[in-house]
Amino acid sequence: MSEIFSDAYFMKLALAEGQKAFDAGEVPVGAIVVANNKIIGKGHNLTEKLNDVTAHAEMQAITAAANFIGAKYLIDCTLYVTLEPCVMCAGALFWSQVSKVVYGAADEKRGYGKYGLLLHPQTKIVSGVMADECSLLLKEFFKQLRQT
Amino acid sequence: MSEIFSDAYFMKLALAEGQKAFDAGEVPVGAIVVANNKIIGKGHNLTEKLNDVTAHAEMQAITAAANFIGAKYLIDCTLYVTLEPCVMCAGALFWSQVSKVVYGAADEKRGYGKYGLLLHPQTKIVSGVMADECSLLLKEFFKQLRQT
Repeated sequence: MSEIFSDAYFMKLALAEGQKAFDAGEVPVGAIVVANNKIIGKGHNLTEKLNDVTAHAEMQAITAAANFIGAKYLIDCTLYVTLEPCVMCAGALFWSQVSKVVYGAADEKRGYGKYGLLLHPQTKIVSGVMADECSLLLKEFFKQLRQT
Repeated sequence: MSEIFSDAYFMKLALAEGQKAFDAGEVPVGAIVVANNKIIGKGHNLTEKLNDVTAHAEMQAITAAANFIGAKYLIDCTLYVTLEPCVMCAGALFWSQVSKVVYGAADEKRGYGKYGLLLHPQTKIVSGVMADECSLLLKEFFKQLRQT
């Protein structure tokens, strides 16, 4: 397999999803689900537009991927997300049995990490991929928010 | 306010939602969201029908209630659910800032409780309401499942 399909390659695509959230005035988090190097689900944060706290990027990417494959378990799939998942999304990822989760920026305040192992024990976790770029998008959003 | 609107009264209505899941061959969990003694959202587990691990009863009740009131926060609302919420649903309830969560049967294996305080610190939690009835519905489901 070519090196082109690296975690950074797919994180860039998750970042592109995050940019869509940014452009829509949403907290900019993006996620994609990849199987066999193909995107089978994607999503960006839509909590404001949908008035729905459950409309996180990961939740939508999980639902879209399951819909695409016609099955609810995301075995042999990888979820890329620009920000460390929250407890809700970690819980959803647990149920999905996704094989690998790759996230960019850490979320010390709302990330799942401080609550222990909430993901499935079979799920491989990779953190810090393009963390600076992922973090910058969030910082820029909140900077603009403070200025409005 | 009349005693008629007790936690048990509303849990019976959540159980009726759970029965719908049972009848549809889904793990029988039901949830409702109540504001001012009126149901503003309800849901039952649909993970099999929708092929979606995120389609828990609470998630759908939260989304429905937020849609009903046109706002994403469920302040001054109570969520009734027949089974102790999982980590995913506890995370969603945290984000919703729901004022009170009432659940029936405990879920020692998948309940959020063992992970510490995942709900919002302002959320009041009541457990064990009609626990036997809620548990019986689940036991009956898994008993039938083993026989098929």
